[in-house]
Amino acid sequence: MVKEMLRQGGRSARIQVAVHSAVEELAVEVGREGLAVPLIAERAGVTPSTIYRRWGDLAELLADVAVQRLRPVSDPDDTGALASDLEAFVLQYAEEMSSKVGRSLLLDVLAASGNDPGPAGRCCQYTSQHLETIRARAIAREEDVFEVDIVIDVVIAPIVYHILFGDREPDAAYCRALLARL
Amino acid sequence: MVKEMLRQGGRSARIQVAVHSAVEELAVEVGREGLAVPLIAERAGVTPSTIYRRWGDLAELLADVAVQRLRPVSDPDDTGALASDLEAFVLQYAEEMSSKVGRSLLLDVLAASGNDPGPAGRCCQYTSQHLETIRARAIAREEDVFEVDIVIDVVIAPIVYHILFGDREPDAAYCRALLARL
Repeated sequence: MVKEMLRQGGRSARIQVAVHSAVEELAVEVGREGLAVPLIAERAGVTPSTIYRRWGDLAELLADVAVQRLRPVSDPDDTGALASDLEAFVLQYAEEMSSKVGRSLLLDVLAASGNDPGPAGRCCQYTSQHLETIRARAIAREEDVFEVDIVIDVVIAPIVYHILFGDREPDAAYCRALLARL
Repeated sequence: MVKEMLRQGGRSARIQVAVHSAVEELAVEVGREGLAVPLIAERAGVTPSTIYRRWGDLAELLADVAVQRLRPVSDPDDTGALASDLEAFVLQYAEEMSSKVGRSLLLDVLAASGNDPGPAGRCCQYTSQHLETIRARAIAREEDVFEVDIVIDVVIAPIVYHILFGDREPDAAYCRALLARL
């Protein structure tokens, strides 16, 4: 019984990897607009119904892929002081998220959120966790610290707003002006 | 020649009204997920190619409908003072946009923005214009005024961020706390 579950777990994980890879390869080959469940299924070597059963629809699959790609691979840089840790993190965040790829990942995560708020919530949590790490380091250094929610509202939210609505470029000067409001 | 252009203008406007109405009716009848260009075309009494020619694809059509529905129908209330004008506007904005319909309109506007940033930009402008109106009234009353960009960053952006990512409800108490940061 346990063996069966483990084997299924292994199969399930392999399907996930195959389907995610198929989405990423096809996105490059046929573009974001050309993606369709039957095409992805064929490339991944699974049936379309496997994808529908597991992800629901194309939007939810793309959100799942996007949130995986947005998952941080490492802790934010430790620059030795709170102000510089925060500036380094925010400048990198704005640069990555305002790129064509970053913006498109954000939109994929949001597009599916009417049906499944999970990916959008995880996307927020990644940002909060990074800020918590920076805050914990500052506490260890006995520096004055910020509240994570305040940094989200004062710095992160305006950057995301302008990236999504495209009304202003969140360049380094703008990010520094936001940080100065903390 | 002028007559011909006018007649075409009239026909074009009629198509727009018919297609927009078809989208709104069908969204109620079959739900947002069931919408498809052939279905919309049939209801509107036009060919699918008319829709593709004019709007590009379903996402761009939905964004066009959404931005029309987000267009303000009147100026913000004049309550006699800047602080109360701003509070009334912000509380109403947060309430409308955090509703199921409001959030779905925001997402429709954003979903198409990879191909056509127009609707997302207009959506921002509606908000800025309302804030400009409130600011102009305050200047006429010789009150101390805010900068519109600052209100967008400090108040509007966090509200929109939390609506989109679903990590916190932008209730009245939260909106008032944001206004207090101005």
